[in-house]
Amino acid sequence: MSDTLSLAQQLIQKASVTPDDAGCQDLLMARLAPLGFADERLRFEEVDNLWARKGQDGPVLAFAGHTDVVPTGPETHWSHPPFEAGVHDGYLFGRGAADMKGSLAAFVTAAERFVANHPNHKGSIALLITSDEEGPARNGTVKVVETLEARSEKIDWCLIGEPSSTHQVGDTIKNGRRGSLHGYLTVHGIQGHVAYPHMAENPVHKAAPALDALAREHWDEGNEFFPPTTFQVTRLESGMGSNVIPGEMLVHFNFRYCTENTAESLEARVIDILDRHGLKYDLQWHLSGRPFLTDRGALVEAASGAIEATTGQETTLSTAGGTSDGRFIAPTGAQVLELGPVNATIHKIDECVKADDLDQLSVIYEGILERLLVE
Amino acid sequence: MSDTLSLAQQLIQKASVTPDDAGCQDLLMARLAPLGFADERLRFEEVDNLWARKGQDGPVLAFAGHTDVVPTGPETHWSHPPFEAGVHDGYLFGRGAADMKGSLAAFVTAAERFVANHPNHKGSIALLITSDEEGPARNGTVKVVETLEARSEKIDWCLIGEPSSTHQVGDTIKNGRRGSLHGYLTVHGIQGHVAYPHMAENPVHKAAPALDALAREHWDEGNEFFPPTTFQVTRLESGMGSNVIPGEMLVHFNFRYCTENTAESLEARVIDILDRHGLKYDLQWHLSGRPFLTDRGALVEAASGAIEATTGQETTLSTAGGTSDGRFIAPTGAQVLELGPVNATIHKIDECVKADDLDQLSVIYEGILERLLVE
Repeated sequence: MSDTLSLAQQLIQKASVTPDDAGCQDLLMARLAPLGFADERLRFEEVDNLWARKGQDGPVLAFAGHTDVVPTGPETHWSHPPFEAGVHDGYLFGRGAADMKGSLAAFVTAAERFVANHPNHKGSIALLITSDEEGPARNGTVKVVETLEARSEKIDWCLIGEPSSTHQVGDTIKNGRRGSLHGYLTVHGIQGHVAYPHMAENPVHKAAPALDALAREHWDEGNEFFPPTTFQVTRLESGMGSNVIPGEMLVHFNFRYCTENTAESLEARVIDILDRHGLKYDLQWHLSGRPFLTDRGALVEAASGAIEATTGQETTLSTAGGTSDGRFIAPTGAQVLELGPVNATIHKIDECVKADDLDQLSVIYEGILERLLVE
Repeated sequence: MSDTLSLAQQLIQKASVTPDDAGCQDLLMARLAPLGFADERLRFEEVDNLWARKGQDGPVLAFAGHTDVVPTGPETHWSHPPFEAGVHDGYLFGRGAADMKGSLAAFVTAAERFVANHPNHKGSIALLITSDEEGPARNGTVKVVETLEARSEKIDWCLIGEPSSTHQVGDTIKNGRRGSLHGYLTVHGIQGHVAYPHMAENPVHKAAPALDALAREHWDEGNEFFPPTTFQVTRLESGMGSNVIPGEMLVHFNFRYCTENTAESLEARVIDILDRHGLKYDLQWHLSGRPFLTDRGALVEAASGAIEATTGQETTLSTAGGTSDGRFIAPTGAQVLELGPVNATIHKIDECVKADDLDQLSVIYEGILERLLVE
């Protein structure tokens, strides 16, 4: 059995549902310490974080990831027990197989081979591991990044093990993510009886053309790396029915936005549209994550090269999908890239990953280390 | 003490909260039977109804009203106990004083004087009284009307004792009411993740221009008796917020409509607007009441004449306000008019009516009987 598969199985067998690390980080350190990685634990409240670094010099290549997994749902719905980590028809089944204990195992075995072959590599190798990526993400990666920044410790290249691939391992890498901005709008009217509308002001009637304008607005054209910014209403609520004209209307909405806009530019444009329609309103904002982008450069070249050398296929750059912990690391100036297994089954019943893919992924990670940390 | 005031007090002292008649109809019959009124009780489920008629011939003038009252709310908030029927500073206080036990008393004393002065009057006098006007109104006036229609018994003129007056008794009479039509719309979209809007279809975005069009539509211009038809959204609901594009959107709305439209014409126009905007939807309708109108004629003339003779003032015809039991009686072909005391305190804490107004109202009702039932 492959060394990577075996380590992935041991990790899956530790039922580390967010925020419980369940000993996964100890298991990783048991393999990394013999290679010369320093073991720094950073616990914030109920979250276990690990910063493990080999070497004192730059450049620093950090592998970032998480040991926590989402809940299994009803275990009886699974074809194979979710924490048994059995291999069936060439697939490793279990919660976390794809997201992302397979990646953790692949990086550890890659580092083992790389250090054995290049004991005097340049720069440093690090692992930034949290047990709260799937949860509120307040005491995980963001806090570790703050700790590193406070002591001026920089990451140059960050390789995130999130499952970026679509059909085959390495077919897609994510070199950025859109930003996410939430808006919470309350439109004020005057409540009244439907029989006397001249004594009331219906906030739904007042807001309808403004909602239409927001839905139709072209926020930008996107760019080479990003699709255009999108606006979506996620919740509407007003009134109680029967014979009462509502007094106010709640509208929640979300932007997924590219680097052609900023949170500030979008906020100003929404306010402009609301004001143009003469609405009386309150508006609050929550910035869930700014967009980030890693342009072509050393990290993208190393990843594409390693993928092509291992799989014989070209990779595709993508910025689609939800947010990731990359949003916390990119603002430090690091180049950030996500590269991991096929994401078809993540968060689902019967999460699984092709066993051979883990070996390929380990070879790809090793190839990246060789391209970046060997003179 | 005036005879009308005294009877109104006896009626208020019977705490007849919907649908409980609490003996009010017995009290009315104790006064009407000696005049020659036949006593027909029509109980449907928990509702007591009374059809009392004097005479066999047409034309039939019916006084319509109700013995039930709305709840008092916290009795300690009242300046005077709501079922004590005390007179303070010239006002009779109590639940039902204005809506509409004062009117019931005024009509009974008017009939007593009229029959004494005109024992051989022409036509018939009737009272159509229910104990469920303030409630669901399913087993009250509508059922009595069905009973009369089944035996081809017609009402020619119907005088409803609802409090129609604004500042002084008789200043306003209601010769019609708008119709009320409820719509329940569900707009269908496709639920999805806000990060992938191209794989979803937001029903809020699809419906916003249709809602705007419905809110802006001029349904008609109204006419001599009615203000223009109005449309109001009364409830909106869609989505749960966070990162989910809603799958559907609920819209409840209500028309208050005049005789320039019908329920059918409004339904067709709404469907046309929704279809023009390419919406996928389900739509249900509830017709709460068709509009009715009593044009100038014998009943309006008799009422205006009696008011002017009693108060020295001209009356105003109005069709404003909510629905009333007139919606059930008008479709039989009867002329229907609402005439009762000042409505300033109805359904409120400290409901009251000017004691003198009850005597004036009784004289007005007597004047209407004289104008219509004396050769």
